[in-house]
Amino acid sequence: MSPEEQQELVEVAGELADAAGPATLRHFRLQGLEHENKDAMGWDPVTDADRESEMAMRKILARRRPQDAIQGEEFNAVDGTSGLTWVLDPIDGTRSFVSGSPVWGILIAISDKSGPLYGIVEQPYIGERFEGGFGRATARGPLGTRQISTRKTKDLADAILFTTFPEIGTVHERRAFENLSRQTLLTRYGMDCYGYALLAGGHIDLVVEAGLKDIDINAPIAVVQAAGGMVTGWDGGPAHLGGRIVAAANQYIHEAALEFLSSCP
Amino acid sequence: MSPEEQQELVEVAGELADAAGPATLRHFRLQGLEHENKDAMGWDPVTDADRESEMAMRKILARRRPQDAIQGEEFNAVDGTSGLTWVLDPIDGTRSFVSGSPVWGILIAISDKSGPLYGIVEQPYIGERFEGGFGRATARGPLGTRQISTRKTKDLADAILFTTFPEIGTVHERRAFENLSRQTLLTRYGMDCYGYALLAGGHIDLVVEAGLKDIDINAPIAVVQAAGGMVTGWDGGPAHLGGRIVAAANQYIHEAALEFLSSCP
Repeated sequence: MSPEEQQELVEVAGELADAAGPATLRHFRLQGLEHENKDAMGWDPVTDADRESEMAMRKILARRRPQDAIQGEEFNAVDGTSGLTWVLDPIDGTRSFVSGSPVWGILIAISDKSGPLYGIVEQPYIGERFEGGFGRATARGPLGTRQISTRKTKDLADAILFTTFPEIGTVHERRAFENLSRQTLLTRYGMDCYGYALLAGGHIDLVVEAGLKDIDINAPIAVVQAAGGMVTGWDGGPAHLGGRIVAAANQYIHEAALEFLSSCP
Repeated sequence: MSPEEQQELVEVAGELADAAGPATLRHFRLQGLEHENKDAMGWDPVTDADRESEMAMRKILARRRPQDAIQGEEFNAVDGTSGLTWVLDPIDGTRSFVSGSPVWGILIAISDKSGPLYGIVEQPYIGERFEGGFGRATARGPLGTRQISTRKTKDLADAILFTTFPEIGTVHERRAFENLSRQTLLTRYGMDCYGYALLAGGHIDLVVEAGLKDIDINAPIAVVQAAGGMVTGWDGGPAHLGGRIVAAANQYIHEAALEFLSSCP
């Protein structure tokens, strides 16, 4: 891909984030936020904010990148001719969103068949943007803009581990996670995509999850890898299709974590 | 207390928050943040940020309110003659702080023997201030300033519950918490003082914790009560000395939660 095309994709991705942010914030922390029950077995709140955020991004793509495919959470997939797909999660962390917690994000990735090439994790309430790919790895926020790189931690005993739920996945998955968690310095919960942003930013060492969808993980992969980290499945294979995910600050931590995760049935 | 004295206390509290915020942010998200191991049995990181934040506040109090007592986390208690005590936690949520997570806070309360009269929960990275007491209940943040009030939820089945740790307290405390958690719509983890701010802001319905210190809970009590909520021990008694805490959006949720908590041995 030419530098010019890369630059265009980066610009369009930024335009998507700029449009999606205000669309979400119009609904954030409003009293009486309505959410439908999307999952009859549990509680998966879908708000107008999700739909407006994704629609704002799709409108821009229809105009600027009609040749690309779109994979999003709220609307049907769109085919393309370029071999590139925009992988969009208009609000990752709707449980955080409906609770007023600021650790949700808008996820935007440009991917081909082998995985994401570039991605953005956007947190519009705080005013933060983490981006990675095409030679870039930066974080912009209340304290300014800086290059980001992952931590150099070599030992699990010094590692900070994040995950979204303490009730992670199946019984087997939970046991594997807990065995790993016991080896680390600190385990924290409830972060959704924001955990990957903190990993890319050099603040934590591990994110371990299960049951993810492709739209949940493409942008985080791009940002974490661009900052020097590794993201794979628990089996060490590709992560961009979702499932069981381990994201690590470096190869040492990744290898140490896989020892606890790779044999999980 | 006269309106003039109340106003002076509010002004001084604001000055403390204004000084403590930058003192913490000088250390937030720096690579290689050093933390000592204060608790030989666990991991209780204490950073320069804690000490500088509290020292900044104590300097202001020494000048503006020498008649008041001070109870803080990092330095010795100071006696006073006014009957009022400043209860300060320079960083509540140091585990969040050292992980780069933005859900820690600076806690400032003005208390007398019966509990807090006024408090501030300050999150300087996001730029948020929740305050309550002396007839005020407001939240200031990226989206502006507004009056806050707690939710009107009446049924646990519609309630959102927050706590800091899934590994809450003793075995008995954990079982009581889990029994309650199963009745709620949603349970989220890892928020420290920020959970109380979200409760006061009208975004969630319950915060349940155990093992708190007085400095952890005085400011949250003031803010939650000013917004219309209730904060007590699990036994329904006063909460300002710490211990087992239940904070609820209203009396219905409080009463329903106590049914699961009050008999905990």
